[in-house]
Amino acid sequence: MARLQGNALIGQSGGPTCVINQSLVGLVEACTRSDAIQSVYGALQGIQGILTENLIDLGAETQATLEAVATTPCAALKSVRKKPTQDDAARVLEVFKAHDIRYFFYIGGNDSAETAHLLNETAVAAGYDVRLFHVPKTIDNDLAVTDHCPGYGSAARFVAQAIMGDDQDNKSLPGIKIDVIMGRHAGWLTAASRLSRVTEEDGPHLIYVPERAFSWDAFLGDVQRTYDAHGRCLVAVSEGIHDADGVLIAEGGEKDQFGNAQLSGSGALGDLLAGRVKAGLGSGLRVRADTFGYLQRSYFGVVSPSDADEARKVGHKAVEVATGGEVPHGSLVILREEGTPYRARFDVTDLANVAQKTRVLDDVYIEGTNDVSAAFLDYALPLVGELPVRGRLAAQPVAKRLS
Amino acid sequence: MARLQGNALIGQSGGPTCVINQSLVGLVEACTRSDAIQSVYGALQGIQGILTENLIDLGAETQATLEAVATTPCAALKSVRKKPTQDDAARVLEVFKAHDIRYFFYIGGNDSAETAHLLNETAVAAGYDVRLFHVPKTIDNDLAVTDHCPGYGSAARFVAQAIMGDDQDNKSLPGIKIDVIMGRHAGWLTAASRLSRVTEEDGPHLIYVPERAFSWDAFLGDVQRTYDAHGRCLVAVSEGIHDADGVLIAEGGEKDQFGNAQLSGSGALGDLLAGRVKAGLGSGLRVRADTFGYLQRSYFGVVSPSDADEARKVGHKAVEVATGGEVPHGSLVILREEGTPYRARFDVTDLANVAQKTRVLDDVYIEGTNDVSAAFLDYALPLVGELPVRGRLAAQPVAKRLS
Repeated sequence: MARLQGNALIGQSGGPTCVINQSLVGLVEACTRSDAIQSVYGALQGIQGILTENLIDLGAETQATLEAVATTPCAALKSVRKKPTQDDAARVLEVFKAHDIRYFFYIGGNDSAETAHLLNETAVAAGYDVRLFHVPKTIDNDLAVTDHCPGYGSAARFVAQAIMGDDQDNKSLPGIKIDVIMGRHAGWLTAASRLSRVTEEDGPHLIYVPERAFSWDAFLGDVQRTYDAHGRCLVAVSEGIHDADGVLIAEGGEKDQFGNAQLSGSGALGDLLAGRVKAGLGSGLRVRADTFGYLQRSYFGVVSPSDADEARKVGHKAVEVATGGEVPHGSLVILREEGTPYRARFDVTDLANVAQKTRVLDDVYIEGTNDVSAAFLDYALPLVGELPVRGRLAAQPVAKRLS
Repeated sequence: MARLQGNALIGQSGGPTCVINQSLVGLVEACTRSDAIQSVYGALQGIQGILTENLIDLGAETQATLEAVATTPCAALKSVRKKPTQDDAARVLEVFKAHDIRYFFYIGGNDSAETAHLLNETAVAAGYDVRLFHVPKTIDNDLAVTDHCPGYGSAARFVAQAIMGDDQDNKSLPGIKIDVIMGRHAGWLTAASRLSRVTEEDGPHLIYVPERAFSWDAFLGDVQRTYDAHGRCLVAVSEGIHDADGVLIAEGGEKDQFGNAQLSGSGALGDLLAGRVKAGLGSGLRVRADTFGYLQRSYFGVVSPSDADEARKVGHKAVEVATGGEVPHGSLVILREEGTPYRARFDVTDLANVAQKTRVLDDVYIEGTNDVSAAFLDYALPLVGELPVRGRLAAQPVAKRLS
């Protein structure tokens, strides 16, 4: 296989993460260093920017700018949710030829891996030699093959700190509190709420993920039992929970081009759950719901150190593999070395292994119908990094003197 | 005025903040150091804990515990929303007498100042000598006299970083985004969203506070104009916005004992606003709403350094004033020295000046009907502390080669 000489193009696609620009900067750094690559361009708005030839020269950015961009959340190249048609793919190839693009890196989730896969098939059929690589990112952590996805650790950290704080809030002013967490098909991010529970008393007391069918009766019973035991109840629930028939509890109206329902950017599920708890368990109860929303993928200032580091390095690795001359296309993956302390290594798998595939929470990480297992903590802690520690008063009672 | 000898009691009341335990620990430290105070107790659940004689010995806590508690969000003594009746006040006095409580410190907002005021009147009428002090806290920043309230700086920081990130999100995937921010009567916290806007392009593009009447027509016009100009629109809106007749746009059903409607813990207002934008401006628009909810007052790990510092020191000052023998009761305030750099000093004012009073955003901090002024930035920045800085690509275009 020939080592190609030419230009590189980078695009970002799908929902943002807090470290998606670490991967962008990692790619730019490694492309700039590579002898095989002359210029490194960025496509604005992912595939859309290629179709309209809306490209920028990333090689012209200063190192200071790149470092500042790396620590800034959300796609610096702007993003898009677009599934290319056959005509689109042909047009992309024309743009590749016109700009001598021989390396294309698409940072995104499984929809983006599918896009890369489609472009690759078009290029192969047309006999145009180009190295196409999918660089993973998603707060949902639901990509196949990889141990975890860049973006997940930071989002999980945001959720863990949010739940820790909200648990303190709920201890301060007891009641039933429901927190809705992102995760359409997989409960990885909701499971991260479990990191908040250090003692039996701590919330979240109940965790519902899309990997288990949601039942209203079971839910109301769980909440009642928890409230009876603790005088309060903190619930973490995935936006994607559904009943035994697969019908979403929150049925959004809008769907995107990949057929995904709109679940985020609305408080509907939280309000529905809170309303049913009030109706079912007593209108006098103090019931509140928060939907963490886009803050989970975009909050500026809460980042997992290992997530930021790996997101950068996966960009380096992508260029190393692409210019190595042995693998023509693929999706980057992060693998976990056996044993402790936690160590990651980077590898590559076929695009077809990742495209449009979803990895849900492993059974070993789920406990019953309303909780996450201790094994999940071992999985998640190194990805999230050290969390703040709650101070707890010893609270020695003063003897009563009145009747 | 005699310098009283006796025990001290501390309570926490109302909604939590991220630094409310800094004030608690500041009080405990200073009480422990004072010759006038023998024991320092905490009332669990504020006034409710006094009524039930549910007291703990704060003097028995280790310094390490106190330091850990100081950096933990939300009331470590647990909180309450309770307005004491005359009978309650009489019972409180009995508990004070039984435990020789001569110093009472109540950490809370204006409802808590009112409670302290009521207790003081009861004590004076009964001839029981006790020093009663209100120690301010509220993320709403709506207390009278004080320049700002402990708790506000950290909540404002949380909001600013959330909006900065969400603005990046909205640049990545453009659309109309509405963020609902806490603030029942005053727009202080919503105004903090303005800290995110560094360039004309940055959001929030529109800011609505309860100090100005909200009009649906004006709102929809504002959003349309912004969308036409920027291709996107980020809106920050107070939960407490109301029409010209004072009717809340989000009419919650529940009210607490002080007659306050439930606005938080529900996504209803955001969804209402988003729905009206879709209906009014076109169903094809990408419109999303997030309600930041309790994270604003409880998020674990985002704190303003000056807020944490001042919250601790206001506790020290409260004990200094109370044991000084010159002021029998009052509410602690923070005053801002003239000039730069920012410096705060601590003082005390009459309880009646703070009890049940609300300080709304000064006119000088509001611009028109949908924005906050530059003067507000000078006010807020020292309270919030240095914010992260966005990296921005120079984005030099690559010349097009196709038609």
